[in-house]
Amino acid sequence: MAITLKKIAEMVGGTVSGDENVLITGVGSLTDATRGDISLFYDYRYREYLKKTKASALLVSKVTALYKGPQVVVSNPLLSYARVAALFAVPTPTFPGISERATIHESSVIGNNVSIYPFVYVGENASIGDHAILFPGVFVGDRVRIGERTIIHPNVSIMHDCVIGKEVIIHAGAVIGSDGFGFVRDGSTNVKIPQMGFVQIDDQVEIGANCCVDRAATGKTWIKKGVKTDNLVQVAHNVTIGKDTVIVAQSALGGSVSIGDSVIIGGQSAISDHVKIGDRAMIGSKSGVAKSLPPGEIVSGVPAMPHRIWLKTRGLITKLPDLVKRLRVLEKRVDELERSTNHSGHDND
Amino acid sequence: MAITLKKIAEMVGGTVSGDENVLITGVGSLTDATRGDISLFYDYRYREYLKKTKASALLVSKVTALYKGPQVVVSNPLLSYARVAALFAVPTPTFPGISERATIHESSVIGNNVSIYPFVYVGENASIGDHAILFPGVFVGDRVRIGERTIIHPNVSIMHDCVIGKEVIIHAGAVIGSDGFGFVRDGSTNVKIPQMGFVQIDDQVEIGANCCVDRAATGKTWIKKGVKTDNLVQVAHNVTIGKDTVIVAQSALGGSVSIGDSVIIGGQSAISDHVKIGDRAMIGSKSGVAKSLPPGEIVSGVPAMPHRIWLKTRGLITKLPDLVKRLRVLEKRVDELERSTNHSGHDND
Amino acid sequence: MAITLKKIAEMVGGTVSGDENVLITGVGSLTDATRGDISLFYDYRYREYLKKTKASALLVSKVTALYKGPQVVVSNPLLSYARVAALFAVPTPTFPGISERATIHESSVIGNNVSIYPFVYVGENASIGDHAILFPGVFVGDRVRIGERTIIHPNVSIMHDCVIGKEVIIHAGAVIGSDGFGFVRDGSTNVKIPQMGFVQIDDQVEIGANCCVDRAATGKTWIKKGVKTDNLVQVAHNVTIGKDTVIVAQSALGGSVSIGDSVIIGGQSAISDHVKIGDRAMIGSKSGVAKSLPPGEIVSGVPAMPHRIWLKTRGLITKLPDLVKRLRVLEKRVDELERSTNHSGHDND
Repeated sequence: MAITLKKIAEMVGGTVSGDENVLITGVGSLTDATRGDISLFYDYRYREYLKKTKASALLVSKVTALYKGPQVVVSNPLLSYARVAALFAVPTPTFPGISERATIHESSVIGNNVSIYPFVYVGENASIGDHAILFPGVFVGDRVRIGERTIIHPNVSIMHDCVIGKEVIIHAGAVIGSDGFGFVRDGSTNVKIPQMGFVQIDDQVEIGANCCVDRAATGKTWIKKGVKTDNLVQVAHNVTIGKDTVIVAQSALGGSVSIGDSVIIGGQSAISDHVKIGDRAMIGSKSGVAKSLPPGEIVSGVPAMPHRIWLKTRGLITKLPDLVKRLRVLEKRVDELERSTNHSGHDND
Repeated sequence: MAITLKKIAEMVGGTVSGDENVLITGVGSLTDATRGDISLFYDYRYREYLKKTKASALLVSKVTALYKGPQVVVSNPLLSYARVAALFAVPTPTFPGISERATIHESSVIGNNVSIYPFVYVGENASIGDHAILFPGVFVGDRVRIGERTIIHPNVSIMHDCVIGKEVIIHAGAVIGSDGFGFVRDGSTNVKIPQMGFVQIDDQVEIGANCCVDRAATGKTWIKKGVKTDNLVQVAHNVTIGKDTVIVAQSALGGSVSIGDSVIIGGQSAISDHVKIGDRAMIGSKSGVAKSLPPGEIVSGVPAMPHRIWLKTRGLITKLPDLVKRLRVLEKRVDELERSTNHSGHDND
Repeated sequence: MAITLKKIAEMVGGTVSGDENVLITGVGSLTDATRGDISLFYDYRYREYLKKTKASALLVSKVTALYKGPQVVVSNPLLSYARVAALFAVPTPTFPGISERATIHESSVIGNNVSIYPFVYVGENASIGDHAILFPGVFVGDRVRIGERTIIHPNVSIMHDCVIGKEVIIHAGAVIGSDGFGFVRDGSTNVKIPQMGFVQIDDQVEIGANCCVDRAATGKTWIKKGVKTDNLVQVAHNVTIGKDTVIVAQSALGGSVSIGDSVIIGGQSAISDHVKIGDRAMIGSKSGVAKSLPPGEIVSGVPAMPHRIWLKTRGLITKLPDLVKRLRVLEKRVDELERSTNHSGHDND
């Protein structure tokens, strides 16, 4: 596909500086772009790449003299880039209808124009929305509902009674609706507490590869509209995640955790059972959050502390040996002072 | 299903306070319960929910005046709840026999009343116990043995020669018997040490979704009776986990780690290679345990320290900037004292 | 299989002390070995096992008097053990050709002597090298290339356009080529940045079970020759991992991270976006590396610090309560000194 820079500028509401008739055939970062690609420049730290880039045009927030080719000025180059890239992206490959090698229970309702690849299993009384794509190895349990235009990548397991919205993307290997981790001791034995709820994933959510989202003990584990999780994230039973929240790889949300809207959770973080995180809070990578946070709070560390304190603290940890030494020196000096002061008769004992 | 409160009380050995003829049709937490459900109250922190709950009866340890409906008094409401909930839980869906779309090597021995769903693969000389359920996408390697009434959820891979006991539950996407991570350097190259052992999982174990349990280098990786692991847990080669131990999500046990009976390991913890953990030890979330622990020890932190020290320490980390400031002030004050003391003739140099 | 100790010694370039005609039928650790096995001794800490071992011979770096049987002296017993063990290891089970229950697009090119098990799916224009083994449940996307003698374990998903080299091993459940985690905010909504690159995995790489390797935004995520990753490792988009690097379980490499050759990364570590790690660096378990490291650097901790400082520091964290107490005592003593010094007329205010 080839498209003029002029058309691209129109699409993203930008203005062209330079030759607007250049034909664009793809996208790329400053270092990856080849001839015909449009790239983007929005972070001054990458200005060194501007001279060497092979990109045929740039999306920029203001015209830069460091690049000779045509530039499209937009308010948010990265956002415009995302929109332009979508034009050139390989569309998700579809399968013409329902494979004869898929096994679908006769009681289930399958929408129009679906792609159901070989080796997909759909249980009883499930429903699959129009234009949904189910890749090979997908398991859909009994009574599961999957919305329109949702894409379920290979080897994903969606256990019974879960509800998946429209335009959801679930990446390969993820497990939705596994049992929550609930046991009660009877002497030394752990007795299983039946996990009788389900998982509800709302529209436009994206779940990363090999993530696990457990079903609720009773009621539902609920991931609201527009949430995005990276890979290998653990969501325990009865968690609620608010709209548009972003969770980076390998984080874990404990049982009954409640996350607000538009929260950002850094990688390898952990949030303890029953904790509530307010809207727009930000949690740094590798944090351990054991207490609830108000809206807008920014924390880091284990235990999580206000990010500005953490910035001061983290450097000091490496200075602990030095602090101990200074303390020891000071103790000796005070010993000496006390001795000499006593010498001269100032003993107050 | 509907059952009288009287019958429920009999089943759990409790005594009814109030109308014992109420019909119970399900279970739910105080907040999730709807009319007909029995709920439970055992944690005083949730007393606010007692007034609003729609539950038709409660399991309690003593009668509470905050709830008007009938109550069943038992010694352990949560344990009784687990037992009652099991009555109402959706049974694991079965498949009538062996699907024609499963591939099972003719040399394998399949028990009675099994459910082998489509797209299950069973290799050579394997054996599957009576009433076992193998969901779609399950891989069973050569010579694997699976016990009676064991449930293997979708897309689980059980590699060759592993032994799985009776009434085991393995959740979706878990991998049992992948190679241990063993390499030896030859110059700059890493030469693979063949991983020739297997994994043994004893009766009533439950393994979480997307967990990995590596086969032993030689001998076995051994998960003993009644162990429960949450999701995304890593168990390295030659680990032994004692009976009834519980491991929360995303924890990792290093090579040849030995865990005692009834240990509790918090989420995202790591235990270093060759470490031994005594019976009934408790390890806090996000801990890093590099040294062996005696029975009953309770630790937290990185490196792991006695929990009571960790409770004191964790708060102090945030006070490090303040400590440094106090130390600096003190140094200046001592400078001044020394100067003034010398002034007055107490110089001991 | 049985082989004389003499032949084993020849194979590993060692010299026999004792009966070179002993027949060896397997391998085992000192504690696992049974009669007929050859074992190894290279770590003095395990000398207690020498007396009890049932091994029929040992690989050693020098003859030990603690063991009565024949010994083969080699420069690196563990390396020799790896080579000998390979003789006795169960070979990866093969399937005779392409299963009729696999689905392979007619446009794909399949090499000679491949093993393509049931329930494998291969998309359009893919190519599979000679002697490759694809276990059940493997998904191979459009245009994927897989090299000769590569082994893909069950339920692995390799998404479109990825390139896998020769003699690669990918363990069960791993996901190669899932979308990188790239979004840009538009108001409160997260707009997906299309992930248009691919993953390249070079020869002799081994990827652990349930790992995730994301495709690049543009360009490639690149895992170079001989890299070994343990299980549940997360590799984000546009990461480059240098030759022979080793990554232990549950570690995460952030977007555009660049790792040098022969680096060792401990378990549960995290490396922040865009960080560069020099050749032969070593990163301790559970570290958080937010800044680039020069070649050969050894770090640990969060934030990562030189390992020798971390060794001093980690113990001090537990002493923080004691430090605070000492500081408080010192403050009182200085108060007292100042008071008594002022008393005696040394007030400098």
